[in-house]
Amino acid sequence: MSFTALDYQYMALAIELAKKGRYTTSPNPNVGCVLVKDGQIVGQGYHQKAGEGHAEVHALAQAKEQALGATAYVTLEPCSHTGRTGPCALALVNAGVIKVIAAMVDPNPAVSGRGLAILEKAGIQTAHGLMQVEAEALNVGFLKRMRNAMPFVQCKLAASLDGKTALANGLSKWITGPLARAQVQDYRAQSCAVLTGADTVLVDNAKMNVRYDELINPPFSLAQLRQPIRVVIDSKHRLTPDLAFFQIESPVIILTTKLDISERWPHFVSHLLVPELNGQVDLSQAMQLLGARGINHIWLEAGHTLAGQMAQQGLVDQFIFYLAPKLIGHSGKSLLQLPVLESMAEVTELSIDDVSMVGVDLKITASYKKSDH
Amino acid sequence: MSFTALDYQYMALAIELAKKGRYTTSPNPNVGCVLVKDGQIVGQGYHQKAGEGHAEVHALAQAKEQALGATAYVTLEPCSHTGRTGPCALALVNAGVIKVIAAMVDPNPAVSGRGLAILEKAGIQTAHGLMQVEAEALNVGFLKRMRNAMPFVQCKLAASLDGKTALANGLSKWITGPLARAQVQDYRAQSCAVLTGADTVLVDNAKMNVRYDELINPPFSLAQLRQPIRVVIDSKHRLTPDLAFFQIESPVIILTTKLDISERWPHFVSHLLVPELNGQVDLSQAMQLLGARGINHIWLEAGHTLAGQMAQQGLVDQFIFYLAPKLIGHSGKSLLQLPVLESMAEVTELSIDDVSMVGVDLKITASYKKSDH
Repeated sequence: MSFTALDYQYMALAIELAKKGRYTTSPNPNVGCVLVKDGQIVGQGYHQKAGEGHAEVHALAQAKEQALGATAYVTLEPCSHTGRTGPCALALVNAGVIKVIAAMVDPNPAVSGRGLAILEKAGIQTAHGLMQVEAEALNVGFLKRMRNAMPFVQCKLAASLDGKTALANGLSKWITGPLARAQVQDYRAQSCAVLTGADTVLVDNAKMNVRYDELINPPFSLAQLRQPIRVVIDSKHRLTPDLAFFQIESPVIILTTKLDISERWPHFVSHLLVPELNGQVDLSQAMQLLGARGINHIWLEAGHTLAGQMAQQGLVDQFIFYLAPKLIGHSGKSLLQLPVLESMAEVTELSIDDVSMVGVDLKITASYKKSDH
Repeated sequence: MSFTALDYQYMALAIELAKKGRYTTSPNPNVGCVLVKDGQIVGQGYHQKAGEGHAEVHALAQAKEQALGATAYVTLEPCSHTGRTGPCALALVNAGVIKVIAAMVDPNPAVSGRGLAILEKAGIQTAHGLMQVEAEALNVGFLKRMRNAMPFVQCKLAASLDGKTALANGLSKWITGPLARAQVQDYRAQSCAVLTGADTVLVDNAKMNVRYDELINPPFSLAQLRQPIRVVIDSKHRLTPDLAFFQIESPVIILTTKLDISERWPHFVSHLLVPELNGQVDLSQAMQLLGARGINHIWLEAGHTLAGQMAQQGLVDQFIFYLAPKLIGHSGKSLLQLPVLESMAEVTELSIDDVSMVGVDLKITASYKKSDH
């Protein structure tokens, strides 16, 4: 099936609607839906929060009887399973929709195509693939988890132009400017989980929560703020409940190789046992376990040891560098701890995907070079 | 005086003409000239090479008797002094030009305005300031030397995204890709002098000349290639004539604190005595001495020690970073050796002036933050 200019227009609207859920739908995907009848939009909706109505449910509720004979534009194949809200495919059938255009099929190979099959069986015309690239970009984390059973990991690295994250004495407040730091808060707010290491929690006294007052024009109130799960890797069992990190009452997962029964941990802290590798948490296994817990999208903000290990093991999907227009010199702290290399052929190759200015700082988005991974 | 759209058009052409001289006019400025009579271009020219005709001379030669009653567009105030070609201001008077528009006045405070005064005295209408920003960009080096008696210094820094110039074992071939390396050759070719340190010459066996076959579509032949003067700082008197650097027969200046009379140096090598500061060549004095030798524009390509000292002393006008999409890790070599800092307030602050992709590499142009210098 070929799509018309109007089809693109309605799907673009559905994608914009879907984006509105980006701070809140975790662990569900962002989905938008537009219902059109006789050239009029009769219903629109988006998935707002896990446990609440899917995009289609909201759009159908708005359209009421006008859904009869309408075309539905959805950014993701309508679900076929009976979750907390019943299968959306069936809801569309029952409402009398005559055509459903999905931007993409369900990324979960086990159920992909089932929602469209329910619709077709009921005599509804279906199509998919309209603005698929844009629809996939809505849910990079959900897609990664559905396809690879691992979260999508964004690794944030902030440094001076000469690649130093801090002075020799550890001072780093602030390398980057306020706009870059506000953007980091926004990335945290959009992630399912913020991942860091015990060093950062111990040495920097970091809390790693979203600080609402540092967000620039957030499209939600403080009361609506969903704090991402804070995940911390503690291979050497050094963390204690008295740290600042544990004074913020929002979900925490400690990844460790043995359970700590000596301390009384707050109710919002859980421990996740991860197999050991070379005397520490096996990071690849850790990612799989986090994926199994429904974590789609990880914002990795860690020191040079953990960031280096994640980069080294190919567990980072996207590197986000903020380079501040500063020079610190050789004595400053390096960005990444990586094995000492013997030849240039061993160097990790990336490709630069995007470059922009964020205030006075340069933001570079990069990922592993495709031929290497 | 206000300028017309046609004025801008002719001056833009004069600026394009001036650019043609950028590989060859050193130590003279790049200048272009367009003569227009009755809406027709009757002559155009640019300064090609020191010791040969100025832009106005070429344009007048082309225009012949049509210069009578013409308007001259020149990117720089016509000269008032009798050099190897006689004062251009007088040549314009003698040719019967009736109006002269200069993009900018002479940057040398001692003679600024004299050329225009000669013209006005002869009854010729003059104006200046048309496209001055573009005209100044043609001659950043010449302007810096005229105004500050020091060369304009561009410091090239090439590193991985995590700010490393080489592996721990010193290997660095190649961090950046072929397009970035070709651009470096082009920068060398446009500079009056390439500046480096004895370490680079000794350890890397660098020659620092322009390799013609690495230039991409050079607008001149190998025979026309003007090699920049190669300047090397040898504070510890370690250089010897047998090094690869001295096997290339093109002008070399060795900056040192005492004259070397023990070695037989090739005829193209000269020594320049520079006062000592902290046991080595005083870099600020070195820049003044090079300025006095007519060096407008220096391309600094050195190791982290010399680059760091130049940066630290505020002697760099423009930093050009080439960041390759690679990760080397903490053990790699740092970009700049700078004093160990105790507080963030001491960090050298730059501002990013331009960002572009050069092949797969990122190019960042930065300069000292204006409030600091």
